[in-house]
Order: sequence, then structure tokens, then C-alpha cells
Amino acid sequence: MPNGPVGELIPPRRVLLGPGPSDVNPRVLRAMATPVLGYLDPDFIELMDGVANMLRDIFGTENGFTLPVSGTGSAGMEAGLANLLEPGDVAVIGENGFFGARLVEIAKRQGATVDVVSADWGKPIDPNEIENALKRNEKVKLVAVVHAETSTGVLQPLEEIAAITKQYNALLLVDAVTSLGGTPVNMDKIGIDFCYSGTQKCLGAPPGLSPVAISEKALEVIENRTTTPRTWYLDLGLLRKYWAGGTRVYHHTPPMSMIYALREALRVVLEDGLENRYARHEKNALALRAGLRNMGLNLLVPDEYCLYQLTTIEIPEGINDQTLRTSLREDYGIEIGGGLGQFAGKAWRIGLMGESSTQSNVLMVLSSLEKLLTNSGFEVGSGSGVKAATEIFNT
Amino acid sequence: MPNGPVGELIPPRRVLLGPGPSDVNPRVLRAMATPVLGYLDPDFIELMDGVANMLRDIFGTENGFTLPVSGTGSAGMEAGLANLLEPGDVAVIGENGFFGARLVEIAKRQGATVDVVSADWGKPIDPNEIENALKRNEKVKLVAVVHAETSTGVLQPLEEIAAITKQYNALLLVDAVTSLGGTPVNMDKIGIDFCYSGTQKCLGAPPGLSPVAISEKALEVIENRTTTPRTWYLDLGLLRKYWAGGTRVYHHTPPMSMIYALREALRVVLEDGLENRYARHEKNALALRAGLRNMGLNLLVPDEYCLYQLTTIEIPEGINDQTLRTSLREDYGIEIGGGLGQFAGKAWRIGLMGESSTQSNVLMVLSSLEKLLTNSGFEVGSGSGVKAATEIFNT
Repeated sequence: MPNGPVGELIPPRRVLLGPGPSDVNPRVLRAMATPVLGYLDPDFIELMDGVANMLRDIFGTENGFTLPVSGTGSAGMEAGLANLLEPGDVAVIGENGFFGARLVEIAKRQGATVDVVSADWGKPIDPNEIENALKRNEKVKLVAVVHAETSTGVLQPLEEIAAITKQYNALLLVDAVTSLGGTPVNMDKIGIDFCYSGTQKCLGAPPGLSPVAISEKALEVIENRTTTPRTWYLDLGLLRKYWAGGTRVYHHTPPMSMIYALREALRVVLEDGLENRYARHEKNALALRAGLRNMGLNLLVPDEYCLYQLTTIEIPEGINDQTLRTSLREDYGIEIGGGLGQFAGKAWRIGLMGESSTQSNVLMVLSSLEKLLTNSGFEVGSGSGVKAATEIFNT
Repeated sequence: MPNGPVGELIPPRRVLLGPGPSDVNPRVLRAMATPVLGYLDPDFIELMDGVANMLRDIFGTENGFTLPVSGTGSAGMEAGLANLLEPGDVAVIGENGFFGARLVEIAKRQGATVDVVSADWGKPIDPNEIENALKRNEKVKLVAVVHAETSTGVLQPLEEIAAITKQYNALLLVDAVTSLGGTPVNMDKIGIDFCYSGTQKCLGAPPGLSPVAISEKALEVIENRTTTPRTWYLDLGLLRKYWAGGTRVYHHTPPMSMIYALREALRVVLEDGLENRYARHEKNALALRAGLRNMGLNLLVPDEYCLYQLTTIEIPEGINDQTLRTSLREDYGIEIGGGLGQFAGKAWRIGLMGESSTQSNVLMVLSSLEKLLTNSGFEVGSGSGVKAATEIFNT
């Protein structure tokens, strides 16, 4: 029995303040409605080059190779690990949240030996522990950490880890899925060899592509592999011949509409100015935090290494996670995230990323949360969230 | 030195009559401009279910599991081989074109032993040769063939190969990238275990997703693996927990805008009616072939196993491939494909897929080709291409 066609596409209106996707810039939505081109059309090739160049600006790199991998952020993660690691290689991976654990899992699937450096959820990885791991293994090929851990809200400082990694002549892979476009990544300055991100966080595009930047050193390692990568779809040696070769060698048909979207999103980011964008993410996050604290809520990550893109809140005792988030979504049209992994049922995650990072969204989520919490019997302590946030906005 | 933002997105207008992407239905373009939802939003989950159900209709299956894999057609290919094959498994793979060769390459990267069954480019795989391969190997896990070989224009008959494969208790994997939506696939009736396609051919959506259908038998094989698949991004066991689980377990953030696009495209396909759609592809292809032949051009695949979606033409002696295709693109706004692999520089590929398969496109490409060939000194033999095509349309 055939199912037949479904009805018209009429999704509800939502303000996306979860861990991503975040709201998409209207210019980006419109760009996707542009008719597609052939994958070897000179006009499309020019467009690819424009995207690759704008990505360089945003990653902070003038060297190596940049491209949007044809998959979501996790595809960028897999592309990095599958192309840089060969069976038997040793990787040191920082695991202090859900996405660090994913790095470990994917590295193992490449046949690599993984030395895991853990930290508690909500804390960054200790660079000394990375150094210990580099010392205790004969030859480490790769060190990998998550810059912005979306499961906990922790910003990982990179400078020290990068210096140690360089000292041991290993490659540094960094997950910048949630940081790129909201927090400086500074790939060349810090010395990152492989950095990947997603389009649906601070860049203001829908999910579907993973912007990737690769250093010259990492490219050499990829060129000198003795085995083929276990993935063909994400084989960067082959992808480079299409994205950066003098003669463009067809690999797979790129997702044109998503590339249009990313192109428009990157234009918006660069027109805004990176510094202005970082400052906006910071100010809105500070206002949100002040508001949440003024309502008597407990934040799970100290300000010292708390992301501006994502704030993790301890769910107060006696408050039902599901009930509150459902009401927030259905009655107020606001999506916030629940906890992942160790934080499931214990934390809320409020994202202020890209287009979603606005003063009005901060005020709206604080006001709605305050009302719902009060209705559920939670005693808002010292005062109003909106009031405290407004004070920050007015400074 | 930063590169700065590029200019406004203003791609040229093209009619896509190459090997894909094909033109996108305007309803589908518009659907992509719809704001995105969270990946666990109940409204999004409902939308996913709708897509999965419509895919069942189009694949011709009531069993197993359907989903759009978050990558292009080649990601669907890799998902199939990486999840069904384990290191040491034996696969028998038909190779009579560029995409058969890709199947072989990807299967090898899974650690499988591949017994290649070849046929000349432009010919289908001989089922007897598949049977010989099944006989000469102790235990074959998987037989793989390309239903519609986009590099040559050959339609592979599946019934006999499916029967033999079943007899030897192997799984049948079929590449339906170019066939789905334009030629019946009949997954259950024929007995296909794993079938994948692309959105940018006969479905009328942009490239970016790979619709996949998996039989119950193949799902069991995936469940009973003794090793994890080498890919995490395309791990179907994990993806199934998100796409079909009672509790939806987050795997990766799906490319919502592309899923909106596919959803709208599938609605259009089912509203058109599959039979009507197949008939349209057939009639337009017959008209194109009649026109090309009437102009004295030589088609590379006999009608007996020639695709309706794609017609391969021998480039006449004395005609410059690049010059003609560039003029067709720049002066007439029409893209046709060059040859791939063995056919590079020797063949043109004219696609009539999905939205691009229209009477007006047939007449336009014949008229433009005729003019350009005549200008290049080619003697159009017995007569006009447009006239011959019109006769077919009027029957």
C-alpha cells in the first residue's frame, strides 16, 4: 500500500536558542532558492573559490587548503581523523564532553591507538595532561581537542596545548564547530593543523556543510600516507583535486544550494566584521548570564572558561525538564537544549549563536523562563532576569 | 591579508541537460527558504517520517528502513558498502563504467575482497558472469551493480541478477542514483537489499542528500556485524536510532533545508504519479534519440539497454568537444555533459532527468546542437533533429 504524498510544508515558527541549529539569516534562506549550476561550470568554480577564500579569513589562515566538506560538522570531524590517521598511529585526544568522546570513537574506527586525556564535564583539558600523554607514548601523530564543547559549554584554551603539540612534532586537530564565527579561531597564529566547523552555529546558515581548514603540514601528511583513507567520500586528497586543482577533477556532485547558503552566510559574517561579531556574542552572553544568575539559577561552567555561544544551566530541583522545555517551545516558540550524555536531565543549554545571538532573544528567553519557573513554584531569588540583562546592555 | 567578502550571488541562467544536477523544481527551491527547526523538535520528527514514507513509495518497498543519508549519492554508496561489508568479506561487483569502478574502490577500502565482473563501457553486465563469480568464491556476502550507469547511459536489467544473487544467499546492492524517479526500481519485487540514489537527478531537488532503502535482511546483517563500520558519519546502525527509533537518539544534526527540499520534491513526484513520470522520461528520450539520429549522430548505447534519463552520443570526427560545449553553455545557456573516464573527449552526455525532462528542452537542445554542428562544418545527414523529435511528440 503506497503512503502517498504528505501535506504542505508548514513548520511552526521557532526561535532557536538551543545548541544548534541556530536561526538562519534571511539572506541565506533566500540564496538557497537560487537555481543550481553544473559542477564543472566555470561560474560555479569561481563561486567555490570565493567560498574557500572567505573561509580563510574566518579561520584565520593564509596557508594550506580550505573547503566546505559535503556533510555536517561530524563529517568534518571524520574527514580530519580519517585522513590524518592510519592504522597503528597514536592519537592523544582530550575528552571532557560528548564531542570529545566522538573524536575518540571516530579515531578508533581508523585503526588508530587512542590515548584519552580526560577532564570532568564542565572543565577544560589540562595542557599538562596532554604533555604527559605525549611523553608516555613513543610517537604521537595527532593531538585533538574540542575548542567549544557544545555538550558542556566549555571553551578550551588552545595556545598552551598548541605549543606543546608542536614541541612533540605532532599535528593539532581542533573541533571549532560551535566556535567559528563567534570566537576567534586564529588557525595560523595558534598553529592548528586541521580545523573543522559547522554551518549551523555561529555562521548563520542551515546545517549541511562542514567548513574545514588544513595546514600545509597536514596536507603533506595526507599526501604521504602509505594506506588509502578508510573513507572515500571524505578522502581529502581526492577532494583537493576538485576544490583546488588546476584541472578540476570530479569527485562527487557538491551540494550547490548549501554552498550558495554558506557563501551568503560568509558574506554576511565578513560584512558584519569578525570583531563586531565576537563582541556581539560576548555582550549577549554576559547579559544572559547576569539575568540567569539574578533569577537565582546556577550556571555549570565558571565564567573563566564559559563559552559565549552556549550557557549551561543546572536544572533547579523540583522542576521537570521536559515539561518546561515543551512549554517554552509550544507556548513561547523558543527552543532551548536539554542535557546530553552526563548532563541529560540535569542541565539546560541556551545557545546564542550567529543570528540567534540578539538582545531581543536574550530578553525574551529570560522573561519566558522566569514566568515558567515561577509558575512551577521556583522562587526567583534576588530579582528579575530581564532587569539584570538590561543593565548589561545599557553599559 | 584578508580576502574580504565576495560580491552578490548572481549565477548565470542555465538549462541543465548534463548527467546531473538537473533543474530543480521551483516549489523545491522555495521550500529551502523555510526557516529551520531543532533536530529533536516533534514537528521535525514528523517531517522526517513523512520523507521516509514517501521514499518507500518511490523505491517500491514496504519493508526495512528508508532514510535520506546526509551526503550526496556517493555517500549513499559508501554507507551501503561500509555497513554491509566487513574486512575479509567477499563482494562481487559489476564494473561497466565510472560508477561501477567507484563501487569497487569503496568496497576495497572496507577491507573486503572484491571479485570484479567487467563488461565493456556501453554494455550491461552479463548475469552469467555474476553467477560464475558467485560459483568461484567460497562465500560471497554482497553483489553490487549500477542500475543506471551515468558515465555510459546503460540501463542494467536487474531481475536475473537478483534471482541469482538470492540463490547464492548473498545481498544485492543497487546504485539507483540516476534511475530513481525516472525508471521503476521496484525494490521489494525485484529483491534488492540495499538501494541508494541522489536527489539531483530524476527527483528534481538539488544535490546534497542520498535517499537510501534497506531490506530487513540487510538490516539484520548490519545488526549482526562483528566489527564496527569504518565510517561513523555513515554508520547506519546509529542513524537508524535517530531516524526510526522509538526514542530518537541524536547522531548528527541533519541538513534540514535539504530535507525540506527532498520532502517537497517527493511530494511533486507522487502528485505527478510515478507511472506518468516514467512515461514522460521515456517519451522525451525517444524524441531526443530520434532527433539525434535524424541529424546523423551516432548513439553509443543500443536502444535495448539505453537509459531514458541519459543519452550518450559519439562526438563526430572533426568537432571540438570543448568548443562546442562551451558555446552551447555560454551562447545558448544549455549544459550538456562531456565524457567521463574511457569516454572522455569521445562522448557527449545529454541528460533528460526530472524537471529537465521536458519537450521544450528536447527541442531546444536539438535545435542548438544542429546549429552549432552545422556551423562547425558537420553535415547534418538525413534531416532535422527537431522535425524527427516533433514527430515522436505528435504520436
